[in-house]
Amino acid sequence: MTSFNQIIDVIKDDLQAVENILTENTASEYSFVDMAVQHVVEGGGKRLRPILVLLSANASGYKGHDAHLLAAVVELIHVASLVHDDVLDEAAIRRGRETLQTKWGNKVAVLVGDYLHARVLSMLVSRRADDPAMEILADTTQAMCEGEVIHAYKSGDFDISESEYLKIIHFKTGKLIAASCTLGAILGQNRQEHINAFTSYGQQIGTAFQIVDDLLDFVSDAEKLGKNAFGDLREGKLTYPIIHARKMCDENEKQELETVLNPDTEETEAIAYVETLFEKYSVESHCLDVAQEYADCAKHALKEVPDSEAKNALKNLADYVVSRDS
Amino acid sequence: MTSFNQIIDVIKDDLQAVENILTENTASEYSFVDMAVQHVVEGGGKRLRPILVLLSANASGYKGHDAHLLAAVVELIHVASLVHDDVLDEAAIRRGRETLQTKWGNKVAVLVGDYLHARVLSMLVSRRADDPAMEILADTTQAMCEGEVIHAYKSGDFDISESEYLKIIHFKTGKLIAASCTLGAILGQNRQEHINAFTSYGQQIGTAFQIVDDLLDFVSDAEKLGKNAFGDLREGKLTYPIIHARKMCDENEKQELETVLNPDTEETEAIAYVETLFEKYSVESHCLDVAQEYADCAKHALKEVPDSEAKNALKNLADYVVSRDS
Repeated sequence: MTSFNQIIDVIKDDLQAVENILTENTASEYSFVDMAVQHVVEGGGKRLRPILVLLSANASGYKGHDAHLLAAVVELIHVASLVHDDVLDEAAIRRGRETLQTKWGNKVAVLVGDYLHARVLSMLVSRRADDPAMEILADTTQAMCEGEVIHAYKSGDFDISESEYLKIIHFKTGKLIAASCTLGAILGQNRQEHINAFTSYGQQIGTAFQIVDDLLDFVSDAEKLGKNAFGDLREGKLTYPIIHARKMCDENEKQELETVLNPDTEETEAIAYVETLFEKYSVESHCLDVAQEYADCAKHALKEVPDSEAKNALKNLADYVVSRDS
Repeated sequence: MTSFNQIIDVIKDDLQAVENILTENTASEYSFVDMAVQHVVEGGGKRLRPILVLLSANASGYKGHDAHLLAAVVELIHVASLVHDDVLDEAAIRRGRETLQTKWGNKVAVLVGDYLHARVLSMLVSRRADDPAMEILADTTQAMCEGEVIHAYKSGDFDISESEYLKIIHFKTGKLIAASCTLGAILGQNRQEHINAFTSYGQQIGTAFQIVDDLLDFVSDAEKLGKNAFGDLREGKLTYPIIHARKMCDENEKQELETVLNPDTEETEAIAYVETLFEKYSVESHCLDVAQEYADCAKHALKEVPDSEAKNALKNLADYVVSRDS
């Protein structure tokens, strides 16, 4: 098993350049805006999307500033969406740090998300005129919103099917991860089959990533997650593991599950019942199997791409997305 | 006094074209997203910003599709900011209609605002490659956010000065109104002094517009406003009339004002005290005088622009912004 740090070793210096761009391009002349923005941008995380831009560019024969800039852009779009998600979810902690609305209230959090989107637009404007990145990112941000709206609208709908849910996460999560790979590939190559291979890779690992993310909310501990476990469940969010468990249930269990997921039920009781069902129907191993299938498809998508260190890193990354524990 | 309908008569057909673009460009394949977006876009209002794009283009010698598209873009940026404002203010009614979060909750409202921004990006992508509009709008949306963040951060700060407040409204409101005029002017002319004249006109009427908007919250009735009067006051927002009144107060009155504006004070008592101060210090007529000064400066900014029906409409519009009662 290759470690995360080994995987990203080939683009270590590029990642540092991306961090520098993130800092420079989010500065505001207003010190308060600056502080709030830096709080979320530095909050960090693994920088999965920048890593995908950089590895995809590298595996397509490109190295340089354009990849750094686009990597920073996709990360800012991602951070902006997290800031708004936290407002929606009334989350108090993200990655072990207080969220913006805990520190400064909802208003600041909604507006900082908007501010980051505005900065993204400024960064894209600075690029050359015939830039396809703008169109890709316009489509992507639109799809992300549609996915989020539909998920918010469907929240509490017990009848959502696995395939409906997978479509929603493709929009919410998969599109930006796929776009990260597409943008990297385009920098180095303009053959459509080559670009399609990276888009397809991104779509597949995007789905794998979200399924594992959903699962970790149930099986990981708060310290590793950097937020409270069972958070999705507490907020009444139906995610892949629960949707799958419900599909396996008989009628009585379905009834009981719906009852314990009701906000009136004591939380410990709800968690205990969900854990019983997960045990009975091997939900954890099922989720990991499904995620691994997507990861395998992702690797397969790159089969015609010439071998390179970066391509190898992308393949290892697909497995890492499934095997990670936080 | 020229009526609003007389003022916009010269661009009546163009405004209809803008409405068509707004409808076409906000459609989503998801019927729920579509419904939520149409609810806010059709919620309408006066379409001040599209009118400014169209009149500025017309007065600069341009008529055609580019003006319609940019007019639709600035309106969508405006609507998106209103949707987010309503979330922040927990407003229940806007322009006589229920707000999104009343109908469908905060989540949908935050996300619909994001969706509109994404559509703006898509619309801009469809324009020619060397488009200066993108840069202008990138700067504008960033400034709008900064103004909003600072205003949110300063809310409840009794020591905010008139000039600090005017700077905030220049960012929050003035920048987009000014950008509307700049964008229109650029379509017809590339002489920098000509474009600057329209930008300056827009900045001045933007400030006049916001001062009158602030005032109407105190002196207009709910039916005309399409929302509850004294709404800003109830939310603890300090706007121009109160900031000016406080400046006029003696120390005892300042103390008393701060006490009644405290959320613990009975609302009718707060309103009564504020009305007493407004009467004593002629706050209404002072606000109208200041707004009229800005409107006069706006008209003056256009002095070197060749006369035309559209230029005349812009001058009348500056006066209308001050004299309107809703």
